Amino acid sequence: MTHRLALIGAGRIGRVHAAAIADNPRAHLALVADVSAAAAAEVAEKFAGTCGTVAEALGEGIDAVLICSSTATHSELIERACAAGKPIFCEKPLDLDLARARQCAARVARSGVPLLMGFNRRFDPHFASLKSQMDRGAVGRVEMVQITSRDPAPPSAAYIRTSGGLFRDMAIHDFDMARWLLGEEPVEVYANGSALVDPVFGECGDIDSAFITLRTAGGRLCAISNSRRAVYGYDQRIEVHGSGGMITAANPREDLVQVSDAGGTRLAKLEHFFLERYAAAYRRELGHFLDILDGRASPLAGVEDGVRALQLAEAAQASLAESRMVRIA
Amino acid sequence: MTHRLALIGAGRIGRVHAAAIADNPRAHLALVADVSAAAAAEVAEKFAGTCGTVAEALGEGIDAVLICSSTATHSELIERACAAGKPIFCEKPLDLDLARARQCAARVARSGVPLLMGFNRRFDPHFASLKSQMDRGAVGRVEMVQITSRDPAPPSAAYIRTSGGLFRDMAIHDFDMARWLLGEEPVEVYANGSALVDPVFGECGDIDSAFITLRTAGGRLCAISNSRRAVYGYDQRIEVHGSGGMITAANPREDLVQVSDAGGTRLAKLEHFFLERYAAAYRRELGHFLDILDGRASPLAGVEDGVRALQLAEAAQASLAESRMVRIA
Amino acid sequence: MTHRLALIGAGRIGRVHAAAIADNPRAHLALVADVSAAAAAEVAEKFAGTCGTVAEALGEGIDAVLICSSTATHSELIERACAAGKPIFCEKPLDLDLARARQCAARVARSGVPLLMGFNRRFDPHFASLKSQMDRGAVGRVEMVQITSRDPAPPSAAYIRTSGGLFRDMAIHDFDMARWLLGEEPVEVYANGSALVDPVFGECGDIDSAFITLRTAGGRLCAISNSRRAVYGYDQRIEVHGSGGMITAANPREDLVQVSDAGGTRLAKLEHFFLERYAAAYRRELGHFLDILDGRASPLAGVEDGVRALQLAEAAQASLAESRMVRIA
Amino acid sequence: MTHRLALIGAGRIGRVHAAAIADNPRAHLALVADVSAAAAAEVAEKFAGTCGTVAEALGEGIDAVLICSSTATHSELIERACAAGKPIFCEKPLDLDLARARQCAARVARSGVPLLMGFNRRFDPHFASLKSQMDRGAVGRVEMVQITSRDPAPPSAAYIRTSGGLFRDMAIHDFDMARWLLGEEPVEVYANGSALVDPVFGECGDIDSAFITLRTAGGRLCAISNSRRAVYGYDQRIEVHGSGGMITAANPREDLVQVSDAGGTRLAKLEHFFLERYAAAYRRELGHFLDILDGRASPLAGVEDGVRALQLAEAAQASLAESRMVRIA
Repeated sequence: MTHRLALIGAGRIGRVHAAAIADNPRAHLALVADVSAAAAAEVAEKFAGTCGTVAEALGEGIDAVLICSSTATHSELIERACAAGKPIFCEKPLDLDLARARQCAARVARSGVPLLMGFNRRFDPHFASLKSQMDRGAVGRVEMVQITSRDPAPPSAAYIRTSGGLFRDMAIHDFDMARWLLGEEPVEVYANGSALVDPVFGECGDIDSAFITLRTAGGRLCAISNSRRAVYGYDQRIEVHGSGGMITAANPREDLVQVSDAGGTRLAKLEHFFLERYAAAYRRELGHFLDILDGRASPLAGVEDGVRALQLAEAAQASLAESRMVRIA
Repeated sequence: MTHRLALIGAGRIGRVHAAAIADNPRAHLALVADVSAAAAAEVAEKFAGTCGTVAEALGEGIDAVLICSSTATHSELIERACAAGKPIFCEKPLDLDLARARQCAARVARSGVPLLMGFNRRFDPHFASLKSQMDRGAVGRVEMVQITSRDPAPPSAAYIRTSGGLFRDMAIHDFDMARWLLGEEPVEVYANGSALVDPVFGECGDIDSAFITLRTAGGRLCAISNSRRAVYGYDQRIEVHGSGGMITAANPREDLVQVSDAGGTRLAKLEHFFLERYAAAYRRELGHFLDILDGRASPLAGVEDGVRALQLAEAAQASLAESRMVRIA
Repeated sequence: MTHRLALIGAGRIGRVHAAAIADNPRAHLALVADVSAAAAAEVAEKFAGTCGTVAEALGEGIDAVLICSSTATHSELIERACAAGKPIFCEKPLDLDLARARQCAARVARSGVPLLMGFNRRFDPHFASLKSQMDRGAVGRVEMVQITSRDPAPPSAAYIRTSGGLFRDMAIHDFDMARWLLGEEPVEVYANGSALVDPVFGECGDIDSAFITLRTAGGRLCAISNSRRAVYGYDQRIEVHGSGGMITAANPREDLVQVSDAGGTRLAKLEHFFLERYAAAYRRELGHFLDILDGRASPLAGVEDGVRALQLAEAAQASLAESRMVRIA
Repeated sequence: MTHRLALIGAGRIGRVHAAAIADNPRAHLALVADVSAAAAAEVAEKFAGTCGTVAEALGEGIDAVLICSSTATHSELIERACAAGKPIFCEKPLDLDLARARQCAARVARSGVPLLMGFNRRFDPHFASLKSQMDRGAVGRVEMVQITSRDPAPPSAAYIRTSGGLFRDMAIHDFDMARWLLGEEPVEVYANGSALVDPVFGECGDIDSAFITLRTAGGRLCAISNSRRAVYGYDQRIEVHGSGGMITAANPREDLVQVSDAGGTRLAKLEHFFLERYAAAYRRELGHFLDILDGRASPLAGVEDGVRALQLAEAAQASLAESRMVRIA
């Protein structure tokens, strides 16, 4: 059976999902809605869908909805989808406000509607292989996790201003990975950071470079390295230390060509950014969503995961603002 | 414009091309023909095409034809397609008989019909990057080329018997790569080999392990390493030495996870076989064929390249049989 | 001219330096002193020296002294060597008590006697190459430094009890590397850690696993990863991020052999521990000390560096004990 | 017991061995002889030996002799050492003339004097580890061996003229490695080559680039890749394919630093040439020679190995000259 999906939000990430839908014979892009009618029309045309309103996206003939609109709209759209009984895929972050996110999560829980949070990295083949090897005991009991997550280049000043800050906008993925890999909830959060890359971050009251430390009740530790700029390409690595050894996932490069000359050996650049690096992850994420619709899977990342990641982001924000370690109840 | 393509041959490699067509919005699988009606029907159904005869594949409503049937049928089908004026994609090898291949190539030349030989490795992103860096002078003037091409596991005895032998069936790709990378025609061929992997090769009068040496008139050298079995996965590497250095293309692995424990560090296996390793190459190859149909490209590998590769395979066969170096006029 | 060196302390690290002296034609092991006469005799015999007292080590016929005795004796021995006007090599840490270390450093400064602190990692060929490339601008302005320092196996309980704890005993090297690489003094210190490897650490009031975060006045950041156990071998890596890219130093392995089989590819283990990993560093460190004696170099790491590293260790200890970020005046 | 060694030949390779002797507490450089008294004096002074004649080198007070003089003198010196009953270390090649080498080997055999051929690569830690893992069955039954051996830069024209040609001078090491790794004697030899690097090779009737193919009676295959120039450094690799997988030894680099910037990632150069690359091998080789003197080992490479390698070099020379495959009886 082909699932008729509605896409709300025709921006950059919306297009990624539209392309994944077009590629997947199990799904059909039935409807595209966006505050910009032009953007909706462009995506609809390119990926063989129809334009429509949000009401139509939650209406008859639609099997499930993908919420890829701006963060500020997520909670309300989720609640409307719950009311309409439509299974939900929602991009991260769930919300910029923790209280609002919790309210929304409670509504989802009551509704019984399945919701998949867009933590795409859980679907990356490299990270998924790492996790499954961990789960099979490849390195014993988990002790320390190190996550490197560095963007190739900073976003625009306009984006920075409404992003919610590095922790909520960017590190949110890393908080989710940390929880997923630690296997225990972090209870202590410390973050330090600086605006080193571009003064605009400082002007926006934000940072562009950060180290974050987490500790679980059981004493497991996690360190996260973030930067808004890595001229050598999108740097996405994981390193897990356990009682039996270390397991890592390295960065894919643009190709496997090496040139050796009088100056040494040169390897290709890392894959540029998330569209390239996580292309397979986005396709697998959609496949998982379709499995949920088919009743063959439950969400690998649910609304509660969205709340928890946001909670860590808020704690990190408080830690940075107040120069102290923050405990999570 | 969407090109209506007919596929002749619904076997393993035919399915690869059918999938590439289904993935490409510029092409439509209009018709599938096979000596086995069941195989044709299965592929047609899976990739949204129609079954038909070879005559229909060369008839009205078809823009171009992909010849993926058994090698013995290639020459005749090419000639029929020429007569029908249909642009041709033909899988390797062109023919098992050099004289027949030349006759066929002459027919193609007279017809003016474009023909793309299925030397898919020229389209592999890693090898294409290597070649383009060579062409930009990354390692100076080419001197020595080393090609490693080792299959994960031997084919069936039935396949071996009609394959034409290791040189025509398997090394044919390497002969093409050698010519492509050397930039000069080889004039000396030496091959030595053994049946080490499985006695069935010896029983079929074939070998399963070989080293081949080529030399061009200008003195450039090429060595090819072939085996019908590599338990560690499909081993496809290139190493080019020039006056300014060395350029290599390494093997992709299944993932980039590394496990370090008391026994050392373990990397993932190589990608298993050609379906995985050359997935991107097959898609790019089809894109190039569509560019040819659009008049935007001429074949990166033409019928003459098919003849030349076969000529080298024949020379290697003679070299092995007669324990001597063979010169090519 | 051959320098007549006296070695105080004939334990594990003392032997390392005795061997380096025996290997170096510019130096002669003139005298070995130890609280254990037997240990002194054994080292003296093996490396062609004579046994003697500390007084003799600081007496006539001795050009310089290497202090490799237990940490508790360092400050006093340094002061006695200053009084005797003997150039000093002193193993890390300078002292376990910061006030005492400062007092000692002041004494060294007044005396004008050169002192080289045994921060051997600055002499490691890999790290030295990394530093010199940084200094030549290979990655632009330094922003973030990540140091991994994990021992293969925990020391004995007896050692742990008198070690001064993970920060003073083990991370002291990393604090020195951090300062060396950051190029600015850290002013904020946060440390979190756990006893995950062995309960004995907890029983000793110590930890075995830690993440430490440093920040300089200029906003540069450093993260340190420590563990007392890495079953895959001695893990000593550096990663520096600058405005122009990233520079890293990887771990040497026991050899460069790779075995590829049906389970993947296996690399050799990392070099086991500091004796293997830093063999070249210890030899180069001694060479540098001899250059100082010859007046051709000034100490790459002086007594003030010993104080500063200890100050960071104390701050980390306070941070851990009080669950807060600690500022350094 | 310290062995009193005499060194005959104070050139480049003689100095390598003199340094290894000076480093080894089990050996003493008792005497240095050279046709150039000045060269002998320089080496004797640097490494704490005495100058003397060849007669003295084979006379009283000398326990064993290292023959590092020019190739033309090897056979005669070996025979004189046999007559004097002195254990022999002899640099490769044994001789440039096969008949003469055989005569010399027969003399050694009759004398019962132990002789270690200077095939230093057998003592390289990487290659030795590879061999020992092969012997323990890491990759099953050996099928194919690939040896890469490329010098960083060509020798002088004067050297080329008297070198005996690429096969006898340079590939001689590779022929020895081939025999060692194949575990069977090659019976078929084919070589092709060119003068691509420098016309001076052609003027000397020599080549600078070659591919060599060997085949044993049991069908095992070996390919050797040689060049007199590799601008990226000394390229010394081994790759062995067996029924159970592949085992390789990669090239060491000058350090393990990697710089990633907008152009990709740059690794350090390979170690420059044999003095750096095989430093450990030369030291281990001497240790093995001392073990032979102590009666604790028999030569890992004997005079017969020297003859066999030369035989393969002669066959390769004939193959190249006559453009044919050469069989060895």
